[in-house]
Amino acid sequence: MTSTNQKNLEAKNAAYSAQFSKGDLALPPAKHYAVVTCMDARIDPCAAFGIDLGDAHVIRNAGGCAKDALRSVVISQQLLGTREILVVKHTDCGMLTFTNEDAHKAVKENLGPAAAVELATLDFLPFPEVEQAVRDDLKYLKEHTASIREDTVVSGWVYDVRTGKVKSIA
Amino acid sequence: MTSTNQKNLEAKNAAYSAQFSKGDLALPPAKHYAVVTCMDARIDPCAAFGIDLGDAHVIRNAGGCAKDALRSVVISQQLLGTREILVVKHTDCGMLTFTNEDAHKAVKENLGPAAAVELATLDFLPFPEVEQAVRDDLKYLKEHTASIREDTVVSGWVYDVRTGKVKSIA
Repeated sequence: MTSTNQKNLEAKNAAYSAQFSKGDLALPPAKHYAVVTCMDARIDPCAAFGIDLGDAHVIRNAGGCAKDALRSVVISQQLLGTREILVVKHTDCGMLTFTNEDAHKAVKENLGPAAAVELATLDFLPFPEVEQAVRDDLKYLKEHTASIREDTVVSGWVYDVRTGKVKSIA
Repeated sequence: MTSTNQKNLEAKNAAYSAQFSKGDLALPPAKHYAVVTCMDARIDPCAAFGIDLGDAHVIRNAGGCAKDALRSVVISQQLLGTREILVVKHTDCGMLTFTNEDAHKAVKENLGPAAAVELATLDFLPFPEVEQAVRDDLKYLKEHTASIREDTVVSGWVYDVRTGKVKSIA
């Protein structure tokens, strides 16, 4: 049975592919950078951050957390030649609304003991203030991990979901 | 010093935000689904997969690996009410081009012993065949993790970077 969201993917992709003309792009990002941003439904990174097709890796997770993106960043740098990282978090982020304790409680109550055991040591990486969280992520990338290139250019930003504007943080 | 890629973000975002009219969307995804896809530079998920702003979480990592997306998926489901996951991998993926051994070797040679120690136990999650990798991810979500809702609707797809077309796998 095909769900509404699956049908939407099929229908919209048929229209997209009918107009598609960029089938000859190379695998490595042409502009040699990676963006780490949140999975939030209100962000369209390609449009909002001006990323042309083929130019940059876009890594997205809950909160746009650099630590959770490390596997992808290492692959991006070591195997696909990127040398710059833009971390873009955003206003009104879901990560501002709960604590690790809340998340573990929800897991236990809603999913049961097997899930609670599976995720027992998981840090959900919530944060209480977004600009500080950006600074903490830059510090993590620059100082706390040995796994990114020393010459990596790193910058941090906050996207405002109300205005569509990005603000430079560091 | 502002890099070329940072200047591009500022300039393109100024144009985007000047036209922006969707500042009133709610935090939880309106269509209650999450897409897990690859960070690959040749994919624009919102356009190619027909995701309107506000409708879905978009989680992206190297390979579009469900296992690496688990923290984000649990937050998406437990705290923001999504009930469906679309896993979309793609042709010509970088994950088809190396093994875990290759990646660990590159880390050691290019980044040194501290990085090698930091990433010693990391599974880079490469895969040798894309359609099987989609099936493996669906199996992981349906059977191997206790941490997603039992009633989650899961589907798997492969996006062709040459044609812009998605193909249903399972």
